[in-house]
Amino acid sequence: MNRHEQRSAETQQNLLGAAEICFARYGYEATSVAQVCREAGVSKGAFYHHFDSKQALFLGLLEQWLAQIDRQIETQDTVARDAPGRLREITGVVDQVQQVPRQQLLIYLEFLNKAVRDPAVLSATLAPYHRYLDLMATMVQQGVTEGSIPPGREAYAAPLLMALIIGLTIQSFIDPAGADWAAVTREGIDLFLSGLQEARP
Amino acid sequence: MNRHEQRSAETQQNLLGAAEICFARYGYEATSVAQVCREAGVSKGAFYHHFDSKQALFLGLLEQWLAQIDRQIETQDTVARDAPGRLREITGVVDQVQQVPRQQLLIYLEFLNKAVRDPAVLSATLAPYHRYLDLMATMVQQGVTEGSIPPGREAYAAPLLMALIIGLTIQSFIDPAGADWAAVTREGIDLFLSGLQEARP
Repeated sequence: MNRHEQRSAETQQNLLGAAEICFARYGYEATSVAQVCREAGVSKGAFYHHFDSKQALFLGLLEQWLAQIDRQIETQDTVARDAPGRLREITGVVDQVQQVPRQQLLIYLEFLNKAVRDPAVLSATLAPYHRYLDLMATMVQQGVTEGSIPPGREAYAAPLLMALIIGLTIQSFIDPAGADWAAVTREGIDLFLSGLQEARP
Repeated sequence: MNRHEQRSAETQQNLLGAAEICFARYGYEATSVAQVCREAGVSKGAFYHHFDSKQALFLGLLEQWLAQIDRQIETQDTVARDAPGRLREITGVVDQVQQVPRQQLLIYLEFLNKAVRDPAVLSATLAPYHRYLDLMATMVQQGVTEGSIPPGREAYAAPLLMALIIGLTIQSFIDPAGADWAAVTREGIDLFLSGLQEARP
């Protein structure tokens, strides 16, 4: 990276940081590109060099949030010996996701409410969903190949595990005091993996 | 019900019907009380006799949607002999929920995005969540009492089943073609109930 590229990367990072601050302060809808530029100390010209729109800025921010989850998954990948072990380690990542600041989830909800009306933006917003679904499907398939997961239920495994994770994260968000969500998550993924490893009748 | 009460009930029903049409056409945010009154052919005075605000109108509409689900649950309650059977029958209700028109879910998402910032409204919006969670917890407890579900996991059962249902419904909404969601739901609840009925090691 030369000095020009480095400065460009810094500007982009400044804009993402400013976006996070502005979205948290005013909400996604009420935040303008001008406000983000002011907060970042960056010109509008520079902004549009990096991002096409406020929407693109949000998707950049989302990517940054997800990169953190990816790093956690990659780190944990090296520990477990078999597929059920690797799938069980996802529990730890879910724990982290459930500790994401409430404000961040509110911004995501606000954005999703807009995105859901625009198929192109919705598809970009849902890319992480498909990425993690594919990752889990691959892990399950490896389990079937290595013999640690009996065949028969593997087509259902990834969407079901994903359902558990989505459903638990949403409940921990809407009713934080309703249960020990970390414990319920551990128990749920455990129960799920036991069921998956059982031979079919 | 005398004639006056009957007319009042009809006006309320007209307003709810008009709300559903207006929210679907313009979105929740962009719909005004005046538009709903025009659509219903009802005066503003009559509107405020029935509903305190647009928010109250939406909550009335939500209650009406949920009453339909309640009727399905009540009907099915009489068939199964034991708690796991009754819990399994919930699958049929989930099937129905997953067939709720997309437009209805969009309105709910839009409303939730507003409600989540107001604790009082959020609590009213989440009342159905707690109702169904309690219903499932009661069914599980009955299973433990009648001996069809071994004790040990019952505290986790209701939030886990709820997680499955929420997570599957959301996935069927964001990625309708991604899987045979009715089949995944059947398989998931089946796997869950098998795990629940197993004795703990």
